Amino acid sequence: MVVKNQIKFIKNLYQKKYRIQHGMFVAEGMKAVSELLNSHFRAHKIYCTDTESFKKFDVEVQQITENDLKKISGLQSPNKVLAIFKIPTPKIVDHNDWILALDDVRDPGNLGTIIRLCDWFGVHNLVCSLNTVDCYNPKVLQATMGSIARVNIVYNDLTVFLNSAQCLVYGAFMGGANVYDEELPERGILVMGNEANGISEKVTQLITKQIAIPQFGEPTTESLNVATATSILLNEIRRK
Amino acid sequence: MVVKNQIKFIKNLYQKKYRIQHGMFVAEGMKAVSELLNSHFRAHKIYCTDTESFKKFDVEVQQITENDLKKISGLQSPNKVLAIFKIPTPKIVDHNDWILALDDVRDPGNLGTIIRLCDWFGVHNLVCSLNTVDCYNPKVLQATMGSIARVNIVYNDLTVFLNSAQCLVYGAFMGGANVYDEELPERGILVMGNEANGISEKVTQLITKQIAIPQFGEPTTESLNVATATSILLNEIRRK
Repeated sequence: MVVKNQIKFIKNLYQKKYRIQHGMFVAEGMKAVSELLNSHFRAHKIYCTDTESFKKFDVEVQQITENDLKKISGLQSPNKVLAIFKIPTPKIVDHNDWILALDDVRDPGNLGTIIRLCDWFGVHNLVCSLNTVDCYNPKVLQATMGSIARVNIVYNDLTVFLNSAQCLVYGAFMGGANVYDEELPERGILVMGNEANGISEKVTQLITKQIAIPQFGEPTTESLNVATATSILLNEIRRK
Repeated sequence: MVVKNQIKFIKNLYQKKYRIQHGMFVAEGMKAVSELLNSHFRAHKIYCTDTESFKKFDVEVQQITENDLKKISGLQSPNKVLAIFKIPTPKIVDHNDWILALDDVRDPGNLGTIIRLCDWFGVHNLVCSLNTVDCYNPKVLQATMGSIARVNIVYNDLTVFLNSAQCLVYGAFMGGANVYDEELPERGILVMGNEANGISEKVTQLITKQIAIPQFGEPTTESLNVATATSILLNEIRRK
């Protein structure tokens, strides 16, 4: 069984301030937990309804009932396992390939989708502004489908990061140059903006080249969602 | 005020069987309702907290309180207006441009995003298999951001539709040919599959060419979400 203190500790980790305080986060579900265990992430403890799957890992495993799992889970349909992992120290950002940078992306689903896209397109470094939603937020983790294990995510003041950039900085703007006509280089930084306001003014000043995805429909059409636009631009970067 | 019968009628329209029975659906929010009013969609009735904005339209408008709006709304934060529209008769599918076809896409958010993408990329015809989620589902409408006013959506048996196709039929498959290497024609049909199972066997038999978005990350990476994959493939179709 899980005792009151354990429940409280785990539930606290659903809040950012406690994740920072303890340096830990919660992951759920067989796929996500397995991918994290098989990566550089270090587990602190595993709670699961069937301990067999986790015997080979060097970590404390506690067998619990499905009812116990419901008490500590943040999901509507808990899936066999909940694990507490240590938040890893981010690696130094490698400037020898494309880097994706996010300027205040706030929606957990969008960040999760974007992390999954980085993984798909082999973009190993994701730099997030300090006001971007926390990547260890349970909803983000849920949307990443385990991809977080393979992307180096760094939170930083974007202006400081871009000021020290050793490559061209591209930014997605509604009025930017048609991306189809751009000769995209082998390495660079792509900045994507906030859902409602796009890229902030102070970050805009550090953009070398403003680019856009051409629109083929009516001009009244709503702009593309940030995750969708990211998918198209990462595809453009990789296809060249 | 809204009376009991009105509330019941509107709430019923949140269910597909009543939408079919009455041939009507509910749209909410200033943006979505305005875009539908300015399109070929015909409104049946408008309920709003401020009738001023809708005076110019030839439709019955009823002023209601915010409290009344809460009673009939399907949203957590209702936004000034709720309108009942007649479900339009789909237009004949135009085979002179690209057509997107969906084989049992079930998630309302995915369908909404895909309709928005069709609008962005000027793909005017969307053919949905009979088991694809209903495009007049409130969650789909919410995700389309008004784009539904500009895309002709037809529900049909996909095998019947594809059998009578007058152009090449492309389908997205994990193991398909690299889309970057394809000479995509001026017109054609692109088929996208179900979230969990991809394109069904009987539809697969009617696909002329299986295509895929190349993966650049680790081979363990989860496949792209159907809405994300659609955004990349529609971009590939239009960029050529």
